[in-house]
Amino acid sequence: MKNSNPVNVSYTARQARLAEVMSKSGFDCIALNPGPSLMYLTGLNFHLMERPVVALFLPGGSPILILPRLEAPKLEALPYALRAFPYNEEPSEWPVVFQNAIQAAGIGKSKVGVEPTRLRFLELKMLDHAAPGGSFISAEQSLAALRMYKDESEVAIMQTAVDIAQRGLQATLPAIKPGVSEREIAAELMLQLLRAGGDPEAAFSPIVSGGPNSANPHASPSERLIQSGDLLVIDWGASYHGYISDLTRTFAIGQVEPEFTQIARIVAEANAAGRAAAGPGVAASLVDKAARDVIERAGYGAYFFTRVGHGIGMEVHEEPYIRAGNPLILQPGMAFTIEPGIYLTGRNGVRVEDNVVITPTGINCLSDLPRELRVLG
Amino acid sequence: MKNSNPVNVSYTARQARLAEVMSKSGFDCIALNPGPSLMYLTGLNFHLMERPVVALFLPGGSPILILPRLEAPKLEALPYALRAFPYNEEPSEWPVVFQNAIQAAGIGKSKVGVEPTRLRFLELKMLDHAAPGGSFISAEQSLAALRMYKDESEVAIMQTAVDIAQRGLQATLPAIKPGVSEREIAAELMLQLLRAGGDPEAAFSPIVSGGPNSANPHASPSERLIQSGDLLVIDWGASYHGYISDLTRTFAIGQVEPEFTQIARIVAEANAAGRAAAGPGVAASLVDKAARDVIERAGYGAYFFTRVGHGIGMEVHEEPYIRAGNPLILQPGMAFTIEPGIYLTGRNGVRVEDNVVITPTGINCLSDLPRELRVLG
Repeated sequence: MKNSNPVNVSYTARQARLAEVMSKSGFDCIALNPGPSLMYLTGLNFHLMERPVVALFLPGGSPILILPRLEAPKLEALPYALRAFPYNEEPSEWPVVFQNAIQAAGIGKSKVGVEPTRLRFLELKMLDHAAPGGSFISAEQSLAALRMYKDESEVAIMQTAVDIAQRGLQATLPAIKPGVSEREIAAELMLQLLRAGGDPEAAFSPIVSGGPNSANPHASPSERLIQSGDLLVIDWGASYHGYISDLTRTFAIGQVEPEFTQIARIVAEANAAGRAAAGPGVAASLVDKAARDVIERAGYGAYFFTRVGHGIGMEVHEEPYIRAGNPLILQPGMAFTIEPGIYLTGRNGVRVEDNVVITPTGINCLSDLPRELRVLG
Repeated sequence: MKNSNPVNVSYTARQARLAEVMSKSGFDCIALNPGPSLMYLTGLNFHLMERPVVALFLPGGSPILILPRLEAPKLEALPYALRAFPYNEEPSEWPVVFQNAIQAAGIGKSKVGVEPTRLRFLELKMLDHAAPGGSFISAEQSLAALRMYKDESEVAIMQTAVDIAQRGLQATLPAIKPGVSEREIAAELMLQLLRAGGDPEAAFSPIVSGGPNSANPHASPSERLIQSGDLLVIDWGASYHGYISDLTRTFAIGQVEPEFTQIARIVAEANAAGRAAAGPGVAASLVDKAARDVIERAGYGAYFFTRVGHGIGMEVHEEPYIRAGNPLILQPGMAFTIEPGIYLTGRNGVRVEDNVVITPTGINCLSDLPRELRVLG
């Protein structure tokens, strides 16, 4: 993520929308540390390290930012007002700076919204110490509601992130053959993603898993060498101007067991059923069910133990989650993955993952690489 | 970071050392979520996402791990005992699994140590809900004490991470010339680091900052084109088997202002003074002072506003911190950066950063690329 503004974003407008969400949900303040939500609202990015950075958003007044002094140059020429509280290198001085910022924010017995998957013990304790009367509670849903609806310019960037990922994979395929390790293929893929125009900061570390490893949906690339007879799962994505893509395709290395070919066909059908079911006004759970039903009817229900998909945008996993039991009604602008799989633990596995955006009339599927089992090597 | 074991690590021995540290510091339990400390103690790595993963370490008994069921295959063939509490995709079921795990751990009114820069609001609230009598406090120092002392096999891996970084930079230099953007140079560097053997998961996103941007010590690569007369700061590193390197060199693009050449000379001298001062039995603050004195004596004290260095290992920033006021006595096995700089805000800046390890008699400087201002383009 860069401090760039490729979508011609109005941060002031986004901050105003946050203020609306806050007043609706009764938050006196939203406290964010570095991450996609802070980036979305301010265009500012900081490394999440041992020095705490916290932004305080208030219904009235400009945002307040507590940050290390050495990060202050990032605040030059911001297109909106911001009250900065920089601190020096000596950690014992930080609590005073937090207290000054909390005082400026007027936080007393306030309801302070935080991001549960972002805010750390470090920032929480600093805030809690500076505002002992405050109650810190999850603002996950409020923030998700902001970022979940992608506008046209965001979708255009996400399309580019998908295009880069697809070109990067295509350029990697010639390197895939028996005797090459999962790690080597992953490195080649990373390189090709950069060459195809991906951000230097990768979307995520790709999964390249062959043979028995392909039956582990969250495998890390290992030193295992690809062999003839393997299924090979590649789950990868690109980052472009802070937005990500997240795709999966499965390949056959030479001739594979007939059952592997069969499960690949079933998973491609499940993927198609998920895409066919998705659209505006449809519950997220029904998209999950549509894909899952295909696999269950084929007798492999027990071998598909993940949800069907997750939202994507500035994060690799965000709202909406496409899972059983999620009553969320899909609306135009929501972007997510559809990624059914069959994992024969100890043997081989298959996953086929696409990225879609809900439109007023159906879906826009951003990815279009062939979904059938392609034979390599 | 991979689930690999390149250093022939005894995780059981590391867990036993943690138990000793716990009994010394009065912790009944250490609760860790995914990150370097968990990796160090278990060899296990998980993505830090919306599904909480928490390991509970106890002075007696094997570790307890709460994790999504789809991550359970990572636990196969672990070389130590572990009690797993897997949960399904439905978030409303997670609290029960946390309660079962907490019960198995026997945590009542316990003192539970956590990592302030890692543990998130998400895991803290889950733990707090499952163990309402527990008090959660920072175990930062206890965990730092474990990981701060690198053994020979760890230093060998770190040397490789430095070698990869140096080879990657050398291969990137021909691409640096006027008219090329910071972003393009950063992408080329990432590519060359992979080609040189770096882990697919990069150490960190490199800083490539030219001209006025070079005066911002934490700049992100921008679309700005390199120009003749620029100083160019490159702060980069490689990751190798989960350990990182973190180096900086500064280059002149063609002919630069005489003052820029002068500050480059001063910073190289400050770097040498820092390296000369470091050794076993020396306070971290004195290494900071040695480097800082050179810059202050030259009249640029106000333009060097960061600490002199930070520890490195499985994290880019870890103990020991080389800063004024840190009384920590350096001991053999401690690894850190020495990175003085002069930042003429709005004009240009210089930084020269090396990676060193304290030995019984002095330091082992892992990096050896030339430190004087090299002219490119």
